[in-house]
Amino acid sequence: MYDAAMQLAVIGLGAMGAPMARNLLKAGHSVTVFNRTAAKAVDFEKLGARCAGSPRAAAVGCEILLVNVSDTPDVEEVLLHPETGAALGLAQGSLVIDCSSIAPGTTRSIAAKLALQGVGYVDAPVSGGPEGAEKATLAIMCGGSETDFARALPILNLLGARVVRVGPVGCGQVAKAVNQVVIAGTYQALAEGLVLAASAGADPAQVLQAISAGAARSWVLENRAGNMLRDQYPPGFRLALHRKDLRIALGEAQAAGAHLPLTQLVAAAEDRLLQSGHGAEDMSVLARQVREDAHIPPGPFPSTQT
Amino acid sequence: MYDAAMQLAVIGLGAMGAPMARNLLKAGHSVTVFNRTAAKAVDFEKLGARCAGSPRAAAVGCEILLVNVSDTPDVEEVLLHPETGAALGLAQGSLVIDCSSIAPGTTRSIAAKLALQGVGYVDAPVSGGPEGAEKATLAIMCGGSETDFARALPILNLLGARVVRVGPVGCGQVAKAVNQVVIAGTYQALAEGLVLAASAGADPAQVLQAISAGAARSWVLENRAGNMLRDQYPPGFRLALHRKDLRIALGEAQAAGAHLPLTQLVAAAEDRLLQSGHGAEDMSVLARQVREDAHIPPGPFPSTQT
Repeated sequence: MYDAAMQLAVIGLGAMGAPMARNLLKAGHSVTVFNRTAAKAVDFEKLGARCAGSPRAAAVGCEILLVNVSDTPDVEEVLLHPETGAALGLAQGSLVIDCSSIAPGTTRSIAAKLALQGVGYVDAPVSGGPEGAEKATLAIMCGGSETDFARALPILNLLGARVVRVGPVGCGQVAKAVNQVVIAGTYQALAEGLVLAASAGADPAQVLQAISAGAARSWVLENRAGNMLRDQYPPGFRLALHRKDLRIALGEAQAAGAHLPLTQLVAAAEDRLLQSGHGAEDMSVLARQVREDAHIPPGPFPSTQT
Repeated sequence: MYDAAMQLAVIGLGAMGAPMARNLLKAGHSVTVFNRTAAKAVDFEKLGARCAGSPRAAAVGCEILLVNVSDTPDVEEVLLHPETGAALGLAQGSLVIDCSSIAPGTTRSIAAKLALQGVGYVDAPVSGGPEGAEKATLAIMCGGSETDFARALPILNLLGARVVRVGPVGCGQVAKAVNQVVIAGTYQALAEGLVLAASAGADPAQVLQAISAGAARSWVLENRAGNMLRDQYPPGFRLALHRKDLRIALGEAQAAGAHLPLTQLVAAAEDRLLQSGHGAEDMSVLARQVREDAHIPPGPFPSTQT
């Protein structure tokens, strides 16, 4: 339940935003929604939400506004568009929480603009996927002042199970980018390991069993090696979205003069997979590219019991 | 304790072989040792071992012979040298267990030669380091026939906590090579993630805390991120040994026409670190190369509390 119902606005009702808005409604808050495709917003009226015709209209009268859109330009548009942007409707003392995964630099500049009109800002990208959004078990990586974070926390606790403040504005986005870099290499490494096992005449599934309790142990191995063994990559975290996040990571690195060779290698492999139509599959489909480069035909690895 | 004391021989008393030999002696077996540097073998006489003057002499009368040496040519020499090799002393019906990490192809050819004289063979490379050898908690990845594995198992259970048969002869070595490929990428990915965090203006330690429970979770993150944060890499698993194992992995891949781009990338980074004198440090020193390429000065990451 809740101490006091708040006036909330939610912009973006996609695979992540929709379940998050439902969780806020369930907790008894008053929620106004806006979605680019209006039909989706209408569904929320049945759940008790109000529909707004623009981000600006959604922002009027709200205490906290949550954003869940796809990419950096989308966040800029919904917040700062000169005619329809939420900034035009936000009152002094209100707070924006951006759960989208976007560039840290743009995040800092948007927050600075909103600060001029007395609006607080917390970047709060999430991981855990649509299932985590549904069950409110997301991990949420936050950037913002201590004060803004303290105001955001009761709302974020309705959406996720692990809400961590990493540092000032932008640091949540940095943490998300780092997360995507770390998993990029872990997926690629696992894929190369399985291809090596098969190339060298061993059963990849048996090899995994032998190494999975030691230094090779990882979330990726425990949760996605099965996809790679079966050569089937049902929707989990979409490759196309991970590629977008790597673009953000590589942009940050380049701006700082840092070379991230492994991240670039995986980004290039993902580009090839996107070109061959694998963007909507789980990112463990990286294994397909490694297999192809090793001349291993498609299909489950030989002698794999699944 | 033991059902019946066996006649064992142990060749190689290095950082791994010495504690393994001690564990066999402790269990009450009769152990003959040989080490290239004889002084080390003499220490074992005090513990009840017999010292032999050559692998051949060590092999005479033994039921099971364990090998723990550094690299592929070393195993070939101690087993197959035309004058001093253990093969000349091994009786029909005896068994060789090779705990060294060497090439799977050479392993198969040595095993085939020994099979001609009725000697069994199990390749049993380990992971877990000197500490795991001391405490008998090693993970042991085995290749060999079901029969040979069954004979090796009571001995291997005295040395490790997780003994798995992966497949026929050579498959233990393949599993070890796969393990080294998977950890190679996981270390490099973590290093790039930390460098990105610092480059993008966040506290790497705080970022790690935010991402460590999700999809980025790994043994490497849990156990070696601290080294990277402190920029200190005390001996754990030596970089030079990991580079040797990647050579084996890349050799297998090349023989099968498989391209492993991430593995090659890490091998090249390790070559640069070896050239600059970091071969004896823990392999998490990979982070030093990534930092250098990002122009981050040596020392703990800024604002890291350690």
